[in-house]
Parts: sequence; C-alpha cells; structure tokens
Amino acid sequence: MYKNKIKQFQSLINEELEHIYVDGPILLKNPINHITSGGKRLRPILCMLIAEMYKIDITKALLPAVSIELLHIFSLVHDDIMDNDDFRHNKPTIHSKWSIPVGILSGDAILALAFKRLNKCNNKIKEIFNSALIAVCEGQALDIEYEKYDNITLEQYFSMIDLKTGHMLGLSAELGGMISKLDNSDLIILRKFGQLLGRGFQIQDDLLEVVSSKNSMGKSLNSDFLLNKKTFLMVKANLKYSKEINFIKIKYKNDIVKSNNLYKKLLIEKGVVKETERYIHDVFKEANSIINKIDYCNYLSNFSKMLRGRKC
Amino acid sequence: MYKNKIKQFQSLINEELEHIYVDGPILLKNPINHITSGGKRLRPILCMLIAEMYKIDITKALLPAVSIELLHIFSLVHDDIMDNDDFRHNKPTIHSKWSIPVGILSGDAILALAFKRLNKCNNKIKEIFNSALIAVCEGQALDIEYEKYDNITLEQYFSMIDLKTGHMLGLSAELGGMISKLDNSDLIILRKFGQLLGRGFQIQDDLLEVVSSKNSMGKSLNSDFLLNKKTFLMVKANLKYSKEINFIKIKYKNDIVKSNNLYKKLLIEKGVVKETERYIHDVFKEANSIINKIDYCNYLSNFSKMLRGRKC
Repeated sequence: MYKNKIKQFQSLINEELEHIYVDGPILLKNPINHITSGGKRLRPILCMLIAEMYKIDITKALLPAVSIELLHIFSLVHDDIMDNDDFRHNKPTIHSKWSIPVGILSGDAILALAFKRLNKCNNKIKEIFNSALIAVCEGQALDIEYEKYDNITLEQYFSMIDLKTGHMLGLSAELGGMISKLDNSDLIILRKFGQLLGRGFQIQDDLLEVVSSKNSMGKSLNSDFLLNKKTFLMVKANLKYSKEINFIKIKYKNDIVKSNNLYKKLLIEKGVVKETERYIHDVFKEANSIINKIDYCNYLSNFSKMLRGRKC
Repeated sequence: MYKNKIKQFQSLINEELEHIYVDGPILLKNPINHITSGGKRLRPILCMLIAEMYKIDITKALLPAVSIELLHIFSLVHDDIMDNDDFRHNKPTIHSKWSIPVGILSGDAILALAFKRLNKCNNKIKEIFNSALIAVCEGQALDIEYEKYDNITLEQYFSMIDLKTGHMLGLSAELGGMISKLDNSDLIILRKFGQLLGRGFQIQDDLLEVVSSKNSMGKSLNSDFLLNKKTFLMVKANLKYSKEINFIKIKYKNDIVKSNNLYKKLLIEKGVVKETERYIHDVFKEANSIINKIDYCNYLSNFSKMLRGRKC
C-alpha cells in the first residue's frame, strides 16, 4: 500500500517535470530536461504523503510538491558547480556536460519555474517557501565558510546542515500539513519531524561518502575530505584525532587517493563510523517519537524508514 | 524638479538596499552589501517615476521597485561570472573579489530577497515579475548559444536583447503603471516604451564598449569581441565585412590587444559606429513617440533623455 502510493506520487511528479520547460533556448531546454529526469523525489513525496494521510485531493498537493522538487534541483545544480561535483544521479552534472555558465543559468531558470508554479498557491505557502530558499543559501554559505577552518564545533555543524538540508525537508512536511489545513501545533510537529529527517539524512550522506563506492552513490566521491568540507565524521574525528588528520593531509597532499583512503581507514578504526551510525539511529528515533501525536502517522514512519534504509 | 525627484528616488532605494540583508553568514552579508551599494537604479526609478506621475504614495511603488533592482543585481552578479567580467560600477565583481561559488550563492540569495519583498505585492505583480526572470534567463541563454556562431541575424540579435534587457525595463514601466491602477491599454504602451528603452540602452551599451575607455564604463572591456559576443555592431559588421573580421581573429589570435584595436578601427572606418548611433537615435525617437498618448509624459521623456545621454 505504502510502496504503491510512493510509486504513484513519483509518477505524478515525473510527469509534471517532463513538461516543465518544453519551449525555449536549447541551452536551457536540454540541461533542464537532463537534470529534472532523475532523482528520488523524496521531498515532494513527503509533502504528498501528508496530504494523502488527510484525504486531500492529491493534485492540490502536487502543485507545491513539484515546486519543492524544483527548488531542490536548483540547489543541487548550483551546489555541484560550487563543490566541483561531476556526477549526480549517475549522470554528468550540467556544468560538467555543458559548462559553468550553462549550469548557473539552468539553475536560475529552474528556480524561476519553481516560483512560477508557486504563484497559484496562497501567500503563506509562498512565504515559507521563500524562507526555505534563503535558508538553503545560508547553509551553503556556512558550508563554504567552514572549508577555510581546520575545525568547527558540533553546534556550528548542526546549524549549517539544519539550514542546508533540514529546512527543506521541514518545509516539505509543513507544506503537506498546510495543504491539509492542520492546526498550528501539528504544523510545528511536522516541521520538526522533517527537520530531524533532514539532519539524519545529511549525516547519513556524510557517512555514505565514506563507506559507499562511487557507483552506488551516483555522484563524485572523495570530494568532502579534499575540499575540507565539514562532515559529521570530520567534526567528530577532529575532536580527538586532529593531529593524525593533519599528518595525513600534509604527508600525502600530492596523493589524493592515498590521503583519502588513510582518512577513511582512520574513521573506521577509531570508531568514528560506528559513533556516526549510532547518532543517525538516535536522530531517526527522535523523529519517529515526535510524530506519535499525529493521526495516521504510519505513513510517516514508513517514510522515515525508507530514508533510513537508503544505500545511496 | 525632475532631477530632484530622481535623487529622492535614488536615496529611497539606496536606504532600502542598505538594510536588505543585515544578519546572516559573512559570505553572504559582505558580498551582498558590496554589490548592492552601487549602480544607477534606472529600473526602479522608472517604476517610481510613473507612480509619481499619477500621484501614488511613493512608498507603495518602493516595494516592487526595490525587488526590480534586486532582480537586476542578481542577473548582473551571475552574468559577470558567465562573462568573466572582473569589474562592475568601478568595483570588483563578487566572484573576482571572493570566488565563483560565493558569486553564484550571493546571486541566488539576492534573488531570494527580491521574491521575499515581492510577497507583499499582489499576484498579478508577482506573475509578471516571474515572467521577467524567465525572460532574463532565456536572453542570457541565447547570448551564450550565439557565442558559438560566426554570425546571427539581426532578428536573432533583437530577440536576444529584448529578452535580456528590454523585458526588465518593460517590467519596470508596467509595474509603475499597475501600481497606478492604469488601464490595460496604458499598461501596454508603458511596457512597449520600457522595452524600446531597453533595446536602445543595450545597443548603446554595445557601442560604449567600443568607443568608451575602461574607466568611464566601470567594468572590464574588450570582452565582447574576444568572447565572440553578438553585439549590434558585430552583427551589422558581419553582414558586410565578415572576411575582414575573420582575418583579424585568425591573424592576431595571440594578441588580444591588437585584435581588439583592429576590430574597433574597422567598426569606425567602415561606418558601423555611425550606423549604430543612427539606430539608437531612431529607437529612442520611437519610444518617445509612443508615450505621447500618456498623461504627464514629460517625466518619461526626461527619463528617456537621461538614458540616451549616459556616457557610462
């Protein structure tokens, strides 16, 4: 039942995205169609699941849901340029297939398409959508800022990923609740649920970059350590093993494969990977516990399980 | 009187922009404040002038006017990355002072701020604002696409600049009319007036890049010819002198100063500069003629004169 619903929602979203930009200059049409044709659609699915729980006409949820997915895709397109990532969803990123200008421009146009669809929604929805966009930019700005630092605190790390990832999943859940005309107290719970999922999801992403192979992730690996990106694992490892990490960085600065492998080895041997797995477990547990108060919450716990179980 | 109004509007816009983003990550706050503190504010001034003509409370016009300026600044920030321009308004561009990632991100955040302000406006305003954003992206996409071609037709050139520049000035005028609650027939005239000004303005920009020095333009020069950007002058020159232009490109491909100077010399000696000046004159004349039907149009003809007379 749950799985069928997910498939149905994915089909609806994919259908909408297939026709999202059919006319226009080829340097927008081709890259936009290239990048909107892949992805798990997690954020819009969360929004639509909640509307489904409350028996709301699903086409009503589809409108903001597709805008959420477009906002997500826009941020991926621009982030991939910033992070120099050449692959996403097992396909070349726009800037690597075309060029950086085309990547910037396609991202801008995808954001414009998100706002265009959103015009049909009410002002409150537009407002929280806008706040999410600013949050995503701010999270990414902190991410870049922190690259310059040797280390950051766990609080700094959380404030960054809560903006970068948590806010969008929080928005997805909240929008689902708003469409379903839930009370403010329920909206707060849903938003918090989404934010916690976002946090768990991001830390899982950090972890998968260490324990997964390139093929199963579908995007370029080895970039976090080399770019000095602050992941949960690096922040944790730096608290106790900063000397060892610096040693790897300096000694093997000209051998990126070696330095990356030694870094991964350290994370596993010193128990940082285990500690991260425990933390992810706790975050998802907390997310599941807060939705107990919500009616028909089994859809949400299934969604949470799906996110938790992903291998890529 | 007119000049005082312009100064008053500029002050109002500048004041708003000074407080547009005061809190947040330093990698957004500093570049946003850096880039929003310069510029002529032509687009919001056009919007506010029209509201003033119809005795509308100017603070009502200020809200969408500032969004227009932010949309314009967003497009400059991203275009400067795409075109590799290091200077704008006599200051370094964001990507040259910080980095390309910070440039992309600041542009995104500036666009988000434009939409945030716009949330307080009515849906019709949001809708045409959104169309303008898509138009700007499409114009820029054509601009990049056309770089690959040896030549384009004059129609292709116009469709590109009408999207890239005309649409935004058309939007500015139309928004001014909408705030003033004008009839649809007047809105059409105002939009057309703005679009023509945009066309004249862009061709003047193309011309200034050839006849102006770097200091008076306040941005990097010599880029159009080297990037194979399609300007009015290049399209016109290519119709008759493509052999000569190709000769310059091939023979002096390793000497960018020499090739650029020879190209400029050709444009002057073959009368392309003169022909361009005549065309600009005609476009502004047409713009002025269509607003005769509008009441209190002297403000608009003054604005047109101001645009026409700019030396940078």
